Amino acid sequence: MKNILIIGAGLSSSTMISYLLDKSGEYGWSIVVADVNKSVAESKIDNHPNAKAVEFDIHSDLALTKLVSENDIIVSMLPSRFHPLVAEECLKQKKHMFTASYVSPQMRAYDDEAKEKDLLFLNECGVDPGIDHMSAMKVIDDIRNKGGKIISFESNTGGLIAPEYDNNPWNYKFTWNARNVILAGQGTACFRHNNKLKYIPYNRLFERTSRMSVLDYGEFDVYANRDSLMYQEIYGIEDAETIFRGTFRRPGYCEAYNVFIQLGLTDDTYEMENAEKLTNRSYLAAFLPEPNGGELEDVLCRYMNLDRNGEVFRKIEWLGLFEEKKISKGKHTPAQILQSIIEPKWTLDEGDLDMIVMQHRFVYELNGKRFKRLSSMIVIGKDTVDTAMSITVGMPVAFAIEEFLNGKFSVRGVQVPVIPELYEPILEKLSPFGVEFIEEEFEL
Amino acid sequence: MKNILIIGAGLSSSTMISYLLDKSGEYGWSIVVADVNKSVAESKIDNHPNAKAVEFDIHSDLALTKLVSENDIIVSMLPSRFHPLVAEECLKQKKHMFTASYVSPQMRAYDDEAKEKDLLFLNECGVDPGIDHMSAMKVIDDIRNKGGKIISFESNTGGLIAPEYDNNPWNYKFTWNARNVILAGQGTACFRHNNKLKYIPYNRLFERTSRMSVLDYGEFDVYANRDSLMYQEIYGIEDAETIFRGTFRRPGYCEAYNVFIQLGLTDDTYEMENAEKLTNRSYLAAFLPEPNGGELEDVLCRYMNLDRNGEVFRKIEWLGLFEEKKISKGKHTPAQILQSIIEPKWTLDEGDLDMIVMQHRFVYELNGKRFKRLSSMIVIGKDTVDTAMSITVGMPVAFAIEEFLNGKFSVRGVQVPVIPELYEPILEKLSPFGVEFIEEEFEL
Repeated sequence: MKNILIIGAGLSSSTMISYLLDKSGEYGWSIVVADVNKSVAESKIDNHPNAKAVEFDIHSDLALTKLVSENDIIVSMLPSRFHPLVAEECLKQKKHMFTASYVSPQMRAYDDEAKEKDLLFLNECGVDPGIDHMSAMKVIDDIRNKGGKIISFESNTGGLIAPEYDNNPWNYKFTWNARNVILAGQGTACFRHNNKLKYIPYNRLFERTSRMSVLDYGEFDVYANRDSLMYQEIYGIEDAETIFRGTFRRPGYCEAYNVFIQLGLTDDTYEMENAEKLTNRSYLAAFLPEPNGGELEDVLCRYMNLDRNGEVFRKIEWLGLFEEKKISKGKHTPAQILQSIIEPKWTLDEGDLDMIVMQHRFVYELNGKRFKRLSSMIVIGKDTVDTAMSITVGMPVAFAIEEFLNGKFSVRGVQVPVIPELYEPILEKLSPFGVEFIEEEFEL
Repeated sequence: MKNILIIGAGLSSSTMISYLLDKSGEYGWSIVVADVNKSVAESKIDNHPNAKAVEFDIHSDLALTKLVSENDIIVSMLPSRFHPLVAEECLKQKKHMFTASYVSPQMRAYDDEAKEKDLLFLNECGVDPGIDHMSAMKVIDDIRNKGGKIISFESNTGGLIAPEYDNNPWNYKFTWNARNVILAGQGTACFRHNNKLKYIPYNRLFERTSRMSVLDYGEFDVYANRDSLMYQEIYGIEDAETIFRGTFRRPGYCEAYNVFIQLGLTDDTYEMENAEKLTNRSYLAAFLPEPNGGELEDVLCRYMNLDRNGEVFRKIEWLGLFEEKKISKGKHTPAQILQSIIEPKWTLDEGDLDMIVMQHRFVYELNGKRFKRLSSMIVIGKDTVDTAMSITVGMPVAFAIEEFLNGKFSVRGVQVPVIPELYEPILEKLSPFGVEFIEEEFEL
């Protein structure tokens, strides 16, 4: 009998909780789901006999101490700033800990003590980070074991709408956190290309895309992520000449979204004056030069060098930016207002399924020859609860817990799933859920 | 006999201190110059019999209490975040206070208590803010006194190199703080145009310039300042249809500097990897796409749509961006590195004089007719110590102190020089120093 505590019952916990509940009878697990909102926790366990919902506030030390003392495995699905509170309690009471989040420097610092106390603190066990690590390292280890050397590593991921339900001019719907999509790419992207560091500022990011196809799912555009360089160390590929991570969107999305970036509509750093009096149209006009005659539509086309009969203009018009429609109340920054205009248009319709696309592209050298290998994954959501996003974010943690409780992991300390002992069994268990990588290889 | 305490003996205090010293005999003033660096204070008073230099650390409450107690007028030339420390001591000991800085909300809050205690706290008494307020309000009051109504107010200022010494392709040299010039315009500019609020993000700011001429000093380009709207309240022109404040540069400067903005070279928010190994050329290359053949020069021209024989390219090349020259040590952010490359090129040569250009443009209605009035000022530096910048920043405070001590100001509380009692005598005294506004008026 093992007791599992899951702290935080939000969106990303659903699929994981229901898998652990399904397995609880077979393994004799007892599961506690703790959330600041008890009814959310209750809805996730749905009166399951092996589970209990509790109301829990992370700011209460006493409650945390008690909950940790009653369980063997602690899963923190809280926002990552709270992980250290949980981790310190786990160290004190010698409990193992699991998260889907990036390892912060603070978490990294617990490594020695966790090892000393024979504890596993497993992190970055979702989709990105998570499945990306596992699937990339599987190929990297395979190439290295054959004596190959990684020359180039590129890895791109996107959360999109499944092709069957892809029916708007942007070929995009919100399948996860809308605010993150609106603000995506702010800051400066840095990566290595042919041994040279490259920097792309936000105002150029959605212009410097590259187009590629993935299996038979058609074409995608890729824009660079902010953080590619950190992966050289995590994956031990410091001498690769190219290291790049990016985000997939369908062709045309980036070009059109770039108009919003260029105009300043995605700025979240200041509040507009009199926002409550704006309409979609007057909001847009505030970012355009004064019309010297001509409609606002023509002013935008001149300013952004668009064709009024072209695809980019059609996308913007379809979102309703030119409509004399009142802005939703309580939206003040340009980005908040943009989100409120876009949200009703990019919302999933009843029955819509989402899709996660991931592709790694390796160039490696073996016996004096160069090869290119593609490793590609497409996951389509099962239904509107078990979405592709929820499966790929939640299942790796669930499987990690299962494998760990089955005694499969001997490694200890603060870990991410980049070693075979961790990624092999998890990837194997993911495969029946549609999380499978198709490999293609060519000699260059 | 009156005792004047000047806290902070930096660049912007020189002209003010020497004027007050010159007048100290006539008026029987005793002057204390306090600076964290005593030798700086000493150099400013140059053994003048009526002055004393003291070493002073604003973080020492005791020293502040003592210095304030020994003087009647307290002038704070410290960075503005320190003004509240001085202001609170002035309130406690009932001393008058003068600064050249913007009134912060914290400073504003002292208004009631200062009035109650019959104290004047005069701020924004430099060039911008300062002379801009005084000269604009003089015209606004004049128009209103005639029964006119302000329809449009535009005001532009620039610190530039005097025409005789204007001998580089940018028509620009650093005449003040270089770092501020490199970072100028970051954020979003907001102004009102024809009763509509307009927002220009940084990445469009140097493109959306307008060209105008000032007296017979030739043409200038203007880019929008961040903060135009606050002036509608300060000047009491809330019902003006257009309110715009901007910065003058010579034609072509903005177009060329915009290339740096577009590339991301002015970003000061992150440090580049291996900055110590970069050269000017490899620094530039880091922000450009990988060349598909062709020199870096051609890559830049393709990426930024420049003509390799054109003016913009010539300006960039002249700064040495393409040179294989090591980056200065200790420069890490893109903006720091850009500044270190530009600084030797835009430095004043021996004997170079600077120039301050200010122009207000009013449209007003009077008796059913519309008029345009221009009010323009050009100040050329006297020499390399009494620069135009140092005269226009320092003299208004010096004159304000003189007039106050002569009993000319009856107003009390936290003030800025926007009322005739304050601006009239100061403007009058500025005129022999070359700070004169030429007015032009046309019926529209």
